[in-house]
Amino acid sequence: MNDRKSPVCFGIHSVMAKLKHKRSVSTLYLSAASASARLSALEQLAMEQNIEVIRCESSRLDELSGNGIHQGTVAEYRPRSPNQKATLKQVMMGIDANNALILILDHIQDPHNLGACLRTAECAGVDAVILPRHSACPVNQTVIKVASGAVESLNIVMVSNIVNALQVLKKNGFWVYGTSDSGDSELFDTDFRGRIALVVGNEGRGIKRLVAEACDQLVRVSLFGELESLNASVATGVCLFEIRRQFAVIEQDSAGKTVQLG
Amino acid sequence: MNDRKSPVCFGIHSVMAKLKHKRSVSTLYLSAASASARLSALEQLAMEQNIEVIRCESSRLDELSGNGIHQGTVAEYRPRSPNQKATLKQVMMGIDANNALILILDHIQDPHNLGACLRTAECAGVDAVILPRHSACPVNQTVIKVASGAVESLNIVMVSNIVNALQVLKKNGFWVYGTSDSGDSELFDTDFRGRIALVVGNEGRGIKRLVAEACDQLVRVSLFGELESLNASVATGVCLFEIRRQFAVIEQDSAGKTVQLG
Repeated sequence: MNDRKSPVCFGIHSVMAKLKHKRSVSTLYLSAASASARLSALEQLAMEQNIEVIRCESSRLDELSGNGIHQGTVAEYRPRSPNQKATLKQVMMGIDANNALILILDHIQDPHNLGACLRTAECAGVDAVILPRHSACPVNQTVIKVASGAVESLNIVMVSNIVNALQVLKKNGFWVYGTSDSGDSELFDTDFRGRIALVVGNEGRGIKRLVAEACDQLVRVSLFGELESLNASVATGVCLFEIRRQFAVIEQDSAGKTVQLG
Repeated sequence: MNDRKSPVCFGIHSVMAKLKHKRSVSTLYLSAASASARLSALEQLAMEQNIEVIRCESSRLDELSGNGIHQGTVAEYRPRSPNQKATLKQVMMGIDANNALILILDHIQDPHNLGACLRTAECAGVDAVILPRHSACPVNQTVIKVASGAVESLNIVMVSNIVNALQVLKKNGFWVYGTSDSGDSELFDTDFRGRIALVVGNEGRGIKRLVAEACDQLVRVSLFGELESLNASVATGVCLFEIRRQFAVIEQDSAGKTVQLG
């Protein structure tokens, strides 16, 4: 119970994400003093997964989190054993039945951009990143350095054909969104729930035509200045964190709080 | 009326942003066939500013927008004359009475990061970017290249002392948010409205202590992976576009659509 070798995460959003998307929590700590709906939702999720739940003093949570902003909850978890040579089939077996998030990078050419996209994807807690095996920047030393540890902790799936990979995702219940300047729906007006795959195109020409045609829906990020596009990693971040925001709103909603999607 | 020398923007979000934040629209075109509340809100804003409004066929909008996704509206506008040597006082005189968005970059050191942050800020339509005159990366040729045109179209204010600049912003009705891992409120739970200033810290140590103390509120972006931080430009993008999303929700709300903040 006091095995400080296990890494911890804390705060409602982070713990919820670990419980929902990683299935790796060994012990959930909750403040004994609080009975909020959001903490109860965490407790219920943990119990459904047979995870040990410990109600404790807030001072214990301070200690476990290193005096972090824990919001009444800390989770001990087993570090992921990312599979750098995962197949799409293996990834499909490991993901959550309800919510999942996969990023597909369609032929990014620049190693700094690829590294930055991978770092962003890791921070957004994607279940896997799909990269094309050919005609794109390989995962080289520059990519690994810029990704700041993301390459080591992400599931990365290399595929020969992105369109085929999207077909596999669709058969597994994913809704595939492509980012495009000429997308039909604005990012912030798009309803993200369930299993989501997001395709981000390369720096120059965006998503390839055949890949765009294989998407279920194209979304655009409206810009407010004179420039025509965001950097690929920033666009990736804006999209992935908006999807995460909506996942969290839905989770809060199902935890009994009345919240509507903006 | 058919002066094709003027640049155009189209789509409800972009046109709304131009009307609200730039005050540079010369003619507003609206689809004669539609009577949606959101188009009516644009029309009303234009009339309040004595801007010419033309109701026309959808085919005319297709032509004006180059067959873009115009959603029933196109605006012709005068390009901005950005002031690269603006003072904070000049910027304060030019901004909107209700909504405004200013980014402060607290001593970014790397030219690629600074350029990427400026590009992101331009795409998010900030009214100005405030940079420290000393002890930070200067706006050099690398920054200008990475910023992809943003340096030319942004109002950039160089200041000797960021804390003093924040005091000026506060006196002008701005609420100053700093981004910090130890922020009190989660970005997506924070209510952004009115005049907003966002401070983003540098790559290594985040916002300086004195700058953090001068902020009204510190916000954090919860991460869902194992890494501890996002790249500065990605964090900037996630925060600025969340603020823009909330501005848009409030605008839709005031246009009569029932929308709650997520």
